[in-house]
Amino acid sequence: MRIVWSAGDPHGIGPEIILKSFLKLEHTQHSFLVCGSYPVMEYYRDALDLPVKLERVDKAASIKKMESADNRVLHVINVAEADSIIPGTISATAGRLAMESIQSAGELCREGAGDALVTAPIHKEAIALAGYPETGHTGFLGRMFGVASPTMMFFDPVLNLKVALATIHEPLEKIPGLIRKMDLDTFFLALSSSLTTDFGIARPRIAVLGLNPHASDGGVMGREEQEVIRPCIERLSQRLRIEGPFPADGFFGSGSYKNYDIVVAMYHDQGLLPFKVLAFETGVNVTLGLPIVRTSPDHGTGFDIAGKGIASERSFYEATLLAIQIANNRKQTLHS
Amino acid sequence: MRIVWSAGDPHGIGPEIILKSFLKLEHTQHSFLVCGSYPVMEYYRDALDLPVKLERVDKAASIKKMESADNRVLHVINVAEADSIIPGTISATAGRLAMESIQSAGELCREGAGDALVTAPIHKEAIALAGYPETGHTGFLGRMFGVASPTMMFFDPVLNLKVALATIHEPLEKIPGLIRKMDLDTFFLALSSSLTTDFGIARPRIAVLGLNPHASDGGVMGREEQEVIRPCIERLSQRLRIEGPFPADGFFGSGSYKNYDIVVAMYHDQGLLPFKVLAFETGVNVTLGLPIVRTSPDHGTGFDIAGKGIASERSFYEATLLAIQIANNRKQTLHS
Repeated sequence: MRIVWSAGDPHGIGPEIILKSFLKLEHTQHSFLVCGSYPVMEYYRDALDLPVKLERVDKAASIKKMESADNRVLHVINVAEADSIIPGTISATAGRLAMESIQSAGELCREGAGDALVTAPIHKEAIALAGYPETGHTGFLGRMFGVASPTMMFFDPVLNLKVALATIHEPLEKIPGLIRKMDLDTFFLALSSSLTTDFGIARPRIAVLGLNPHASDGGVMGREEQEVIRPCIERLSQRLRIEGPFPADGFFGSGSYKNYDIVVAMYHDQGLLPFKVLAFETGVNVTLGLPIVRTSPDHGTGFDIAGKGIASERSFYEATLLAIQIANNRKQTLHS
Repeated sequence: MRIVWSAGDPHGIGPEIILKSFLKLEHTQHSFLVCGSYPVMEYYRDALDLPVKLERVDKAASIKKMESADNRVLHVINVAEADSIIPGTISATAGRLAMESIQSAGELCREGAGDALVTAPIHKEAIALAGYPETGHTGFLGRMFGVASPTMMFFDPVLNLKVALATIHEPLEKIPGLIRKMDLDTFFLALSSSLTTDFGIARPRIAVLGLNPHASDGGVMGREEQEVIRPCIERLSQRLRIEGPFPADGFFGSGSYKNYDIVVAMYHDQGLLPFKVLAFETGVNVTLGLPIVRTSPDHGTGFDIAGKGIASERSFYEATLLAIQIANNRKQTLHS
């Protein structure tokens, strides 16, 4: 398997967690390729004294070179030149480099030169300074691959907990309208299908959380459960193993999530508040519904600790293991 | 200290957790009084074989009797007659008995015959059948004591975690409007004052969560942080130790809550999702802003396990200990 790592914002902890993850993975049968800036990778390798052999490759020649590549060497495709490297600072150049790294890494996977993409964190303000309309990976990759709404899912390998979000980075006041408007049937069918393809679960058990407190207590607080969510679950229950809507507040605390393969939250904080309590260090972000495999750690650029050598590679490492597993599952599905 | 317990729905686990808590508390210097139905208490005592000495008292005589009462006896004020006792069932008579128990218990505390009220769970549908307009304790007690908006707070004695809710049982779509409309300044000032009076914290450190995902990332997703919450915090920061608005999703997982005496969530699930993950068995509900002390367990009537003897009294017991502590703190504040 060949995994492509996009290096993220050069002023964040991305390069560091890539180098540290490589040290854990260099003796496996897999090969790893960084899309980013060679001088940036070299800078952090030397500054943090991490014993990684780096080799610069240009993009055109990269695929051939890699076929006979030594897995003990971390190859770096120099996507663009970085200017001065100042850990912890927001810069347009850094933002542009981060996005071009994703673009380049995504193309390698699209061409089949990479089996999966794992993205290191980018910084929203740096991207905005660089003039990109998207604020995050999911939107950017959706546009790149022509997928209108890829699904954001979080996975914790320790608890085997999966949480998917029905809506993502939206103002709270828009959520009820979005839930009413979206095609929930298609969303759940695609989700179930992704779990089969990507996680090898034949008939996934899906739990759906209510939108309102206590899942509206039968319509007393809000109507979306009665008018939209419950009818959808009833329609789909012939075809899928799907249950709910459950009152969200006690669902995680009571351990009910253990009875399902995935929990669907209606909005960002409803899913991520409990997820980050249960799985702070080991949580992984997965984008479902893309033609390529894509995972990432569930944390940000860590500007406050960048360049200090104290960033934990745990989540990035777990994201890489998961990417390998999903890529394997997809190959088996294709060949079966 | 004399604690008044309202027995909750007679078909739920209320009587059982009261009896079990009494067995843990009968050797303390405090006395305990149940407002409910004597036959109901007797029924569960006998059915579950719990060695509690019960004594029936009529309301008029109760105060005198109690002054020389034996703390090893659990006195029960027979508020109203129950009809047949069928654990796990919803009934109007049961709902009415539950609410009359609260009324009676609240009056005893108002008259000074009780130092604090701890309420066992009631059932929303049973109350509605009985014709009450409120769906819960907080609203009922607010009306009874002429307090427009008592504050719902959750406390975990194990983690020393406190979470207060700015809004309670409201449809999600109403939350942004309610946050814009409410008098947040008064809310935070009253909260700080309650923490001083009830918890003995001289200058409470208050953390405020944002309403939108990532606390809106500077206004990118929603405007309430910029237009309402942040200006309020800035105004108050001269008078209170108050900080925020913080992105909610990582706040609990990262342990940031440990740096504050209380965390204010903007809505029900934002506060209760992480709280119930962190404190499922030991969580306690407290109503702030009432003239009387009132706590309760953070769980419901448990109709599925009622009458089986397997209900855990842990949360009710913790709620009772907290009520004693708050009543003590209030007395000290009065006398200092």
